[in-house]
Amino acid sequence: MTWAPFALTVTVVLSAGVATPAEARQRDADPRKVIVDADPGIDDAMAILFALRSPALEVLGITTVFGNAHIDMGTANALRLVELAGRDVPVARGAAHPLILPLAPPPEFVHGTDGLGNIAQSEPTRQPIEASAAEFIVSTARRYPGEVTLLAIGRLTNLALALALEPRLPALVREVVLMGGSASAGGNVTPVAEANIWGDPHAADIVLGASWKVTMVGLDVTTSVRLGDDRLERMAARDPRVGGFVYRITRFYKQFHDSMGVTGGFYVHDPSAVAYLIDPGIFSTDKARVRVVTEGIAMGQTIADSATRAQRWDAFKGRPEVTVCRDVDGDRLLRLFETTLTP
Amino acid sequence: MTWAPFALTVTVVLSAGVATPAEARQRDADPRKVIVDADPGIDDAMAILFALRSPALEVLGITTVFGNAHIDMGTANALRLVELAGRDVPVARGAAHPLILPLAPPPEFVHGTDGLGNIAQSEPTRQPIEASAAEFIVSTARRYPGEVTLLAIGRLTNLALALALEPRLPALVREVVLMGGSASAGGNVTPVAEANIWGDPHAADIVLGASWKVTMVGLDVTTSVRLGDDRLERMAARDPRVGGFVYRITRFYKQFHDSMGVTGGFYVHDPSAVAYLIDPGIFSTDKARVRVVTEGIAMGQTIADSATRAQRWDAFKGRPEVTVCRDVDGDRLLRLFETTLTP
Repeated sequence: MTWAPFALTVTVVLSAGVATPAEARQRDADPRKVIVDADPGIDDAMAILFALRSPALEVLGITTVFGNAHIDMGTANALRLVELAGRDVPVARGAAHPLILPLAPPPEFVHGTDGLGNIAQSEPTRQPIEASAAEFIVSTARRYPGEVTLLAIGRLTNLALALALEPRLPALVREVVLMGGSASAGGNVTPVAEANIWGDPHAADIVLGASWKVTMVGLDVTTSVRLGDDRLERMAARDPRVGGFVYRITRFYKQFHDSMGVTGGFYVHDPSAVAYLIDPGIFSTDKARVRVVTEGIAMGQTIADSATRAQRWDAFKGRPEVTVCRDVDGDRLLRLFETTLTP
Repeated sequence: MTWAPFALTVTVVLSAGVATPAEARQRDADPRKVIVDADPGIDDAMAILFALRSPALEVLGITTVFGNAHIDMGTANALRLVELAGRDVPVARGAAHPLILPLAPPPEFVHGTDGLGNIAQSEPTRQPIEASAAEFIVSTARRYPGEVTLLAIGRLTNLALALALEPRLPALVREVVLMGGSASAGGNVTPVAEANIWGDPHAADIVLGASWKVTMVGLDVTTSVRLGDDRLERMAARDPRVGGFVYRITRFYKQFHDSMGVTGGFYVHDPSAVAYLIDPGIFSTDKARVRVVTEGIAMGQTIADSATRAQRWDAFKGRPEVTVCRDVDGDRLLRLFETTLTP
């Protein structure tokens, strides 16, 4: 399938979200249409393969963003992953830098100099499509009004740009599930900031403030789950190609976690957002309004209003409620990951 | 006693903190020399009376700062409290506004329009001394090198100014105990900021970054303790003058807490810092480097580095370790408060 942009009449746009009960049942039975917005990245790669291999998801495209690797490297990695999975899924190159802030160097000490754990890889044979990530998100949402879920597992720059291109996007999109932030677990780049939010805090504040359904899969849950080598070895043995690839790219990632004193495996960041989409019952959630700090030493912190004693704070005024993942059944998540990726 | 500034030779300054074992024992047996820096304020008033009535403390002076009331009102309240306690303790008027930020209106909904719960009070008969709060702190520390504890229960502006006047102040002062901040309990003015730190975040970042021994008695402990009317009524019956005064000024404060849904009494903020000075065993503590956010929506947040997964953060470089109160024996604290204030 070659992807092509579609025009859409306002009539169709307005019909988004007013499906009849029969249509809603049909929609729930079909694989869920997803765009994966990612900065591959080792855990992004695991998440992308997880999504591509799930029968519950129909990946309409992968959009890339700077972050764990520079944009050219991350886009090449997305193309490699599509090839590896043997799927004909378009890849759209996205933002090369944050909306406002200067670009920070990629965290090579976490993801390697190639973004995929420094395993020697050949050049991808495919090319990204001509449209940018934000354009692809907008035109795909217009094409399938009310049907497309945005699974955002990198900096949120592309989503913020898409909102700027198409103000009706919140009504056109089914929902947004993002890996990022932290309600009460502290940060991983700074004591208060998680990497995806910290990497473009202005974009994150826009995305968490738009009038769409957003679920935040943050450090509150992703650092509660550890993926260990026993499971990865089993996956590699069962499927040497895909499982073996995951095993190889995660050697560097595991070393990083070892150096941080994390035991029993490494944290499961981006794949947790895919798991939420496939089986939200793995998580318990609550609702909160969320703001993002955009400057100073707390930059990138997500501030949630749940359970606060604050007297006076205008910063939450008019902000929508976000679903925040608070707890996770780690065993169930890891089983889903294993059986989906290497059935 | 009339307070007067003293000159001090460098020789004496350098002797600070090098007491012989015998001298140290003597120092520990004597009442501890304290300057109370406050913005009275209902809980400040309780703390000042608590300190003035404790045989374990020798209050050398009370310095005032804007905050719970404007500086003139807060200074008049300090003079009233000294009169009420029948003590000849100097009061020095301090900062009228934050170091950098514009002055925010006082929280009249917490402390009343007079800072003491809107009970009709006569004018104080005494006057503040001529020296400002910062000058008094500096000259008193020079007079008793290594002996003076600064008990700071308001905005930290006066302490920051004193550090600017006398760079050797950290070596001259025995220690600083402050009510303010929050390591992991959230805020009370905003979801992340406690009032005393929020009221002058630049000053707080200076005070928490200076090379003196600092103990932070913050919301982590002060919101765990509730002072109830049964105890206050008992104290008023035992000592109608001082206990009755505390009962009267706290009616407004209690109403505010009731309106916030706080049950079983009101939070014990400033008196907790006095309790720490008298009997630190009431608290459990840990060590952390602490930074204060000085701008944006997280302004006034204290960021502690304990138990962080953060990768790279220059903001803690060169910062001293602060003692942070983490847990409190509330019953023991309340008993100490009651038996000290109304023996």
